[in-house]
Amino acid sequence: MSALPEADIAARAEALARQAQLTKPAGSLGRLEDIAVFLAGWRGTRIDRAQALVFAGNHGICARGVNPFPQKVTAQMVANFRAGGAAINQLCRVAGAELSVVPLDLDRPTRDFTAAPAMDEAEVRAAMDAGAAAVDPKADILILGEMGIGNSTVAAGLAAAVFGGTGADWVGPGTGSDAQGISLKARVVDEGLALHAPLLHEPIRAFGGREQAAIAGAVLAARRARIPVILDGFVCTAAAATLGPEALEHCLIGHGSAEPGHARLCAAMGKTPILDLGMRLGEGSGAAVALMVVRAAAAMHDGMATFAEAGIG
Amino acid sequence: MSALPEADIAARAEALARQAQLTKPAGSLGRLEDIAVFLAGWRGTRIDRAQALVFAGNHGICARGVNPFPQKVTAQMVANFRAGGAAINQLCRVAGAELSVVPLDLDRPTRDFTAAPAMDEAEVRAAMDAGAAAVDPKADILILGEMGIGNSTVAAGLAAAVFGGTGADWVGPGTGSDAQGISLKARVVDEGLALHAPLLHEPIRAFGGREQAAIAGAVLAARRARIPVILDGFVCTAAAATLGPEALEHCLIGHGSAEPGHARLCAAMGKTPILDLGMRLGEGSGAAVALMVVRAAAAMHDGMATFAEAGIG
Repeated sequence: MSALPEADIAARAEALARQAQLTKPAGSLGRLEDIAVFLAGWRGTRIDRAQALVFAGNHGICARGVNPFPQKVTAQMVANFRAGGAAINQLCRVAGAELSVVPLDLDRPTRDFTAAPAMDEAEVRAAMDAGAAAVDPKADILILGEMGIGNSTVAAGLAAAVFGGTGADWVGPGTGSDAQGISLKARVVDEGLALHAPLLHEPIRAFGGREQAAIAGAVLAARRARIPVILDGFVCTAAAATLGPEALEHCLIGHGSAEPGHARLCAAMGKTPILDLGMRLGEGSGAAVALMVVRAAAAMHDGMATFAEAGIG
Repeated sequence: MSALPEADIAARAEALARQAQLTKPAGSLGRLEDIAVFLAGWRGTRIDRAQALVFAGNHGICARGVNPFPQKVTAQMVANFRAGGAAINQLCRVAGAELSVVPLDLDRPTRDFTAAPAMDEAEVRAAMDAGAAAVDPKADILILGEMGIGNSTVAAGLAAAVFGGTGADWVGPGTGSDAQGISLKARVVDEGLALHAPLLHEPIRAFGGREQAAIAGAVLAARRARIPVILDGFVCTAAAATLGPEALEHCLIGHGSAEPGHARLCAAMGKTPILDLGMRLGEGSGAAVALMVVRAAAAMHDGMATFAEAGIG
């Protein structure tokens, strides 16, 4: 990986100094102040163009019955995104983000990771490239999401590969598995961890899937363009985590998912989600709501008067 | 108090039924689903007009030195609100709320509550009426906030009068008191509780202040017009709490303040704030950010396709 651009330390220091002069007690806007300073270090606090990307993929692990919904729902939901009927469509409209949906070879699921690596190197590369190519280089902020029946099991495998632990540490109900389903998910992740022990440094090759690779590719492309990223819930965060912490300095986590593995994942990554609204849908839905908070932070930073300007004190 | 309108149970049940048909796993949008159902029970999920009201007042208790900022800052901040330079101006703009600022006799502070009741009956009534009169009966949602140097001490008195406990249970740093200042705040609240023991059923008469009375008046006026309300942090919530739980069924708490008494207050009221962003500014700032989440909930509820409409399953 070529050297990635770093945060602009001088711009952050300047934003921090401005925060101290705005007409409010120091620190009294909490996380909004942190977010404003974060934005200043990348592309600045002016958000004219917000892009949302939802990547979709299908997964061979569904052959093991880990998914309570049939696999055809992935394509049906892509059609729903395109028709404007999904949650993410409404949330992007209200948050002012332009949404694109990128289905990735839905008729060609990745391989069952309990039988073989989910993808070969060329497949991973192609999906990462598709993710990178989808990023609008003129966006001021990027929110990422995913759709893929079975992909909370894949994400549990990725998280275990990156941070250790067993399947049981990382699986959860996903879109609606019961206790038996969760226990099956843990078992298949453990099978994958055993089978791919020599390949765990390439988690997405081992476990999949295409939408996870695309998220990783988009995160890197955004970084090269200094575009800050808002990650969504468990699946999206696990995909990004495969890149390692240095590659994620431009990323916020939008919402702490009700999927139990997400809290563990955020803790392992040292990142605190912006919101905690009990959501667990995916699609980028948590990131889209968090974009509204980020917009609030940016507007506050840019628009407030200083004590001197307001003649206060 | 004349009988207050109740939530429309049939409309709530209908909204709950719709939530179960939308293209997402049941319950997967967490708090957004609850908010949509809540809105349906009052004025519906369509939010065309959002009003923000910030009430400002001054407090005789400042004579005791409970305030780290000088009292003239209240009027200076009102001027800042009117000039568009405060945090709440920026947050209302990004959240799509129309802001009005209502200063209440700033040159006539309420009485020092350690020496006498802060207000007489007529003063309380006048301030409540001013709050009620400020409510736009055509608003679809109302967010409430306040500004008043010294008013976190007043709010601690109100909370103790309503829910019991001593000053130390309810005071905190406010806009920036140190340990010594916090201990002074606790002491004066305890003095007030002792002095006003026979008057604690009229907390706002005992402790003040005008902006708290106005908030209470606005909450009641909104209820009569079936307008849902988003309360802000500690001071605003304490003012509303003086009305008792039945009068607050149409109220959400926007943000859990970093002011420590707020968590205790929310728990005593059985309400969970929508956001937790470490904010502690007042002005309605937390409620304004929460309005964005409420807008997201409403847009999701109204705009999503059902499984049948999308042909999914």
